[in-house]
Amino acid sequence: MFALLRPDSAAGESRRVRELVQKLGATAQSLQMGTRQVVAWTGGDANRIAEAIAELDSVEQVTGFDSSLPLVEGSLRGDRSAVRVGDVTIGGRELIVIAGPCAVEESARTEEIAHAVGAAGAKMLRGGAFKPRTLPYSFQGLGRRGLEILAETRAVCGLPIVTEALDVETVSEVAEFADMIQVGARNMQNFGLLKKLGQCGRPVLLKRGMAATVDEWLGAAEYLLAGGNPDVVLCERGIRTFTSHARNTLDLGVIDAVRERTHLPVIVDPSHAAGERNRVPALARAAIAAGADGLIVEVHSDPGRALSDGPQALRPQEFAKLMAELRQIAPIVGRTLTAARDGAPETQATGVAT
Amino acid sequence: MFALLRPDSAAGESRRVRELVQKLGATAQSLQMGTRQVVAWTGGDANRIAEAIAELDSVEQVTGFDSSLPLVEGSLRGDRSAVRVGDVTIGGRELIVIAGPCAVEESARTEEIAHAVGAAGAKMLRGGAFKPRTLPYSFQGLGRRGLEILAETRAVCGLPIVTEALDVETVSEVAEFADMIQVGARNMQNFGLLKKLGQCGRPVLLKRGMAATVDEWLGAAEYLLAGGNPDVVLCERGIRTFTSHARNTLDLGVIDAVRERTHLPVIVDPSHAAGERNRVPALARAAIAAGADGLIVEVHSDPGRALSDGPQALRPQEFAKLMAELRQIAPIVGRTLTAARDGAPETQATGVAT
Amino acid sequence: MFALLRPDSAAGESRRVRELVQKLGATAQSLQMGTRQVVAWTGGDANRIAEAIAELDSVEQVTGFDSSLPLVEGSLRGDRSAVRVGDVTIGGRELIVIAGPCAVEESARTEEIAHAVGAAGAKMLRGGAFKPRTLPYSFQGLGRRGLEILAETRAVCGLPIVTEALDVETVSEVAEFADMIQVGARNMQNFGLLKKLGQCGRPVLLKRGMAATVDEWLGAAEYLLAGGNPDVVLCERGIRTFTSHARNTLDLGVIDAVRERTHLPVIVDPSHAAGERNRVPALARAAIAAGADGLIVEVHSDPGRALSDGPQALRPQEFAKLMAELRQIAPIVGRTLTAARDGAPETQATGVAT
Amino acid sequence: MFALLRPDSAAGESRRVRELVQKLGATAQSLQMGTRQVVAWTGGDANRIAEAIAELDSVEQVTGFDSSLPLVEGSLRGDRSAVRVGDVTIGGRELIVIAGPCAVEESARTEEIAHAVGAAGAKMLRGGAFKPRTLPYSFQGLGRRGLEILAETRAVCGLPIVTEALDVETVSEVAEFADMIQVGARNMQNFGLLKKLGQCGRPVLLKRGMAATVDEWLGAAEYLLAGGNPDVVLCERGIRTFTSHARNTLDLGVIDAVRERTHLPVIVDPSHAAGERNRVPALARAAIAAGADGLIVEVHSDPGRALSDGPQALRPQEFAKLMAELRQIAPIVGRTLTAARDGAPETQATGVAT
Repeated sequence: MFALLRPDSAAGESRRVRELVQKLGATAQSLQMGTRQVVAWTGGDANRIAEAIAELDSVEQVTGFDSSLPLVEGSLRGDRSAVRVGDVTIGGRELIVIAGPCAVEESARTEEIAHAVGAAGAKMLRGGAFKPRTLPYSFQGLGRRGLEILAETRAVCGLPIVTEALDVETVSEVAEFADMIQVGARNMQNFGLLKKLGQCGRPVLLKRGMAATVDEWLGAAEYLLAGGNPDVVLCERGIRTFTSHARNTLDLGVIDAVRERTHLPVIVDPSHAAGERNRVPALARAAIAAGADGLIVEVHSDPGRALSDGPQALRPQEFAKLMAELRQIAPIVGRTLTAARDGAPETQATGVAT
Repeated sequence: MFALLRPDSAAGESRRVRELVQKLGATAQSLQMGTRQVVAWTGGDANRIAEAIAELDSVEQVTGFDSSLPLVEGSLRGDRSAVRVGDVTIGGRELIVIAGPCAVEESARTEEIAHAVGAAGAKMLRGGAFKPRTLPYSFQGLGRRGLEILAETRAVCGLPIVTEALDVETVSEVAEFADMIQVGARNMQNFGLLKKLGQCGRPVLLKRGMAATVDEWLGAAEYLLAGGNPDVVLCERGIRTFTSHARNTLDLGVIDAVRERTHLPVIVDPSHAAGERNRVPALARAAIAAGADGLIVEVHSDPGRALSDGPQALRPQEFAKLMAELRQIAPIVGRTLTAARDGAPETQATGVAT
Repeated sequence: MFALLRPDSAAGESRRVRELVQKLGATAQSLQMGTRQVVAWTGGDANRIAEAIAELDSVEQVTGFDSSLPLVEGSLRGDRSAVRVGDVTIGGRELIVIAGPCAVEESARTEEIAHAVGAAGAKMLRGGAFKPRTLPYSFQGLGRRGLEILAETRAVCGLPIVTEALDVETVSEVAEFADMIQVGARNMQNFGLLKKLGQCGRPVLLKRGMAATVDEWLGAAEYLLAGGNPDVVLCERGIRTFTSHARNTLDLGVIDAVRERTHLPVIVDPSHAAGERNRVPALARAAIAAGADGLIVEVHSDPGRALSDGPQALRPQEFAKLMAELRQIAPIVGRTLTAARDGAPETQATGVAT
Repeated sequence: MFALLRPDSAAGESRRVRELVQKLGATAQSLQMGTRQVVAWTGGDANRIAEAIAELDSVEQVTGFDSSLPLVEGSLRGDRSAVRVGDVTIGGRELIVIAGPCAVEESARTEEIAHAVGAAGAKMLRGGAFKPRTLPYSFQGLGRRGLEILAETRAVCGLPIVTEALDVETVSEVAEFADMIQVGARNMQNFGLLKKLGQCGRPVLLKRGMAATVDEWLGAAEYLLAGGNPDVVLCERGIRTFTSHARNTLDLGVIDAVRERTHLPVIVDPSHAAGERNRVPALARAAIAAGADGLIVEVHSDPGRALSDGPQALRPQEFAKLMAELRQIAPIVGRTLTAARDGAPETQATGVAT
């Protein structure tokens, strides 16, 4: 159960409601939902508690939890959400493509890549400063220096930055530099991290866990929203299945499935599903054709020397060619994609042999 | 190991080679590959047998089985294959969309659907006369009467027919009526059926099993080719995963993965993956954008009364709208899609809100 | 819906009922369930049809299909079933272990293995004469000669035989020689084969498909029972999952899950799950401890020369050692396991280091 | 690559080696492995760096990373490890059963359960004070008060305690009270948490992630060992598959698979795999029969009122009955299980019908 307090409620009011709920035998907690105070509880005699709470002056509404995802499913909100990141809007008519290296590289390389993807039409720059790795001895990213390089690159190229926060300790540091913070697939149910990000003041890109159901993914998003952060973008990146022909199985059917449940935007990461460069464009085109709000794609100007995941990074001209294709698909699904600028890597005009 | 006999070899020559191989300690069998005789074997002393066999006058080539899928992987053939079904070519520049009801309906209904999908640009008609069902008490299709209705509909509408053969006993009956025979997902490794279809004289549409790896799928195709049937079209229809938000998880990454291994065409069935009508168009567009050679889509003019799988059948006008979208995507991936004809169900011109 | 005819109904009565059901708008079929005639239907106005049919003199009972698996779930039968194969009873207090080579070997070898496993306490002999293989060029079993060897071995060793029927064509041939016919995992939904086996006059060992749900597995069993064959034993052999550390993932939780649904016995195949010899004993012990009615285990006296699956075959002394362990586990789960005989391979008494 | 420094190396030596490696073009980091300093690196010219580093006086050994899991796979250690928790040893000849409620309950209830499981032969008490929950509004555990109750219960009952640490912030708090700290399945690749636990001074129970491969699971353990914590116990708790008949699919084959790779003990959680009480005993017996070093089982004296996961909790007498069965299985797999004490819940002697 779930009580929404009136907008003008006093600061301590939430606590008073919570204590009353607890006295009535339920387990309760206070939440900040956007600008509103909310008290949520489970257990106890549902009808009796609801009646008692609804009588309080400070309570606007008691919802019987017809949904266990009230914020994600939008019962307290309007229609489809758009999330603003700097001057970029994800979830609007314009498709947003985020591109860049898997791990942040040294300055010159990062700038080179940022220039190339920006000229080709990317609207945001990606790059990991802190990298989650299966083994402790693997390269773990450039850390704070990586964040600085991203910020320097943004100053030069103008693209807002998305980068991953791996743990609670580095959230503030990442938030200081990044325009949007990514939660990786392995961390989708790192609830401590989600709670921290609920109050980080930055939009969050929430990747789907590799074995996550839609309910679990949306549950993770609910943590962010319930924590006070309304700016969440979902990202499908492939699930783990019995197959071995690709790194992950991209689940494009989940886009419509999620859309039927939530107002939040959904983008797709074709790079981690493909696992190799040659397979990225097909999945990227498919994702846009299936209705994604955008993409996050790995691009590197010298993949053979990339600090991480080189084999799946597109080269700038391959990325520009893909963008040209996506630009043609966009209107078919009622979307737009920004034009390439002068300085974009050369590519063939159109007509892509499969 | 694998010996290809010269084109002019005598009829009994294959047997003579096989017996020699067996005398040398291997297990051997004779195969008819298209017009060529082949002897394949396993076991024994590989080098010794290869040398002995290569010396025979009748043997053109002994291949060291660098591939265990010599026909599917094409070491004995040319480039990318196209499969002709009536006057339709699957695997060429033109995208081929196959459409129709899940199960064949009575005559008037089937004709109505056939007219509608043909006018919208479908090139072939689908419909099951024999239906594989999880339970013995479920409707199992109209059987032979269903085949007759398909043939009558073809006579009127001109579309070649694909329909499923469920078992060895009905292959001849199905082959008598159908232009192309479908192997369903559950039968992908029904080797008796595959062997029979190797000699059925009809092109085969081979659906991927719901838990089949690429190797197993191509192995099933190799059975068909090794049995003497070169006309095989692969069909991805979704795999079984942990998810429950859709009937199956459509694995579009498999298209490129399969293309890297075989010359055979690959089409996609978005209907069985989606499981519900509203989710079909997104997956259909995605499949074409990912490079499929075509689609097989369920369409019904009154889905509420369909004999099978009504909830996932598109209505004719929804199908026509989808075809209009696919027609725009086609050139982006270097393909064409035939124009709608007079009499096609009305649809909005373009611009599809997702 | 589902009408059970009275035991004394005339031969044509089933047809008369079926036609009446069809006249009322449903799709109906006649079934022979053991000695009883049944008419099953779907569609139409359920209440109206049920009322009309229940009034017929020949109809004993109309069940509203509270179960879609009436025979497997036992609404028309008694308690837990035991299946007799020769003088062996599967599903009683005694655990039944079936053992033997993957593929039937030549006579002397097969007899050697049969003697060894029989002496160690196995009650039935396994061995494939027809082998399902992913590739057409792989060894496909000795065929009819294999069946003859099995029969000769039975004459000498006295163990009833279970062997696989791969397709409809060979069912009669296999039934001529075998005491029990196996349906392999790939054929679990080969409905033509299941229908044929419903009337083969032999008990059937029905392996679970590698991606089969409990509903699908029981549905396959319902085909056998509805076809007139009450003697079905289920066999869990591992499912396909994302893991690669074993050939399949043995799903021992399915034993209890299936027991809650059906009266049929359930045994386990640890060999195909393990994929390698060293891993078989742990899974075999676990299966018995989890409550299986028995096992089917691959044993070979010279695994390095086995015609198929040598790496996962136990050697006779390893098998005897495993049997000694199982003999100790049996009473803990309320079962017995027959004693080893003179001539059993030597083994250490007890105490197995893991 | 990987350099092990001599035991007597000066404190700053590791840094000097690391800087030299970096100068040679690789990415390096310093690790504390137990009492030894290690420098690990990737990238650069492998041979050249290895030669240069091996010449340093402070370097005992440069291993070419034949294993990427040097500590977990034991190349720097002895044989099979046993992990001590208080006066309990996990991984020795004695099977260790950990039991208790899912979430810590109020004091009297928790003591009641602890007494019951201890009398039945459990050696440790489990109970979650911090609970990971899919939804933010669900009961999240009693928090610090839960830890205090656990400690009070230990003072009375004498059983060492294992409880979960959900995030980096609460590790110190949990370590203050717990004898062993659990990492939940969702946190298996929460690398920040793993690093923190490497230095927490408590043994760690590392649950396998629900979609984790053996490599990933062992990689997570390597983080703990590389962080300086040698006391790690692995715990299989079921994986996510296509099935829905149980909460998770218990993968007992992984026990042997993991044993072939690592010296660390492995226990099994049958409760989260079963998902319901009636199915727990079969999986628990199977786990011990398959060679697990112990179990962690949910037990509650009034499951209908449990704060979490009541339906899968055994009642004390059910637990005692299970322990009696396990006590009989133990010697068959070369293990012992402590006897029940006076005051253990009554149970039938032996002979368990399945």
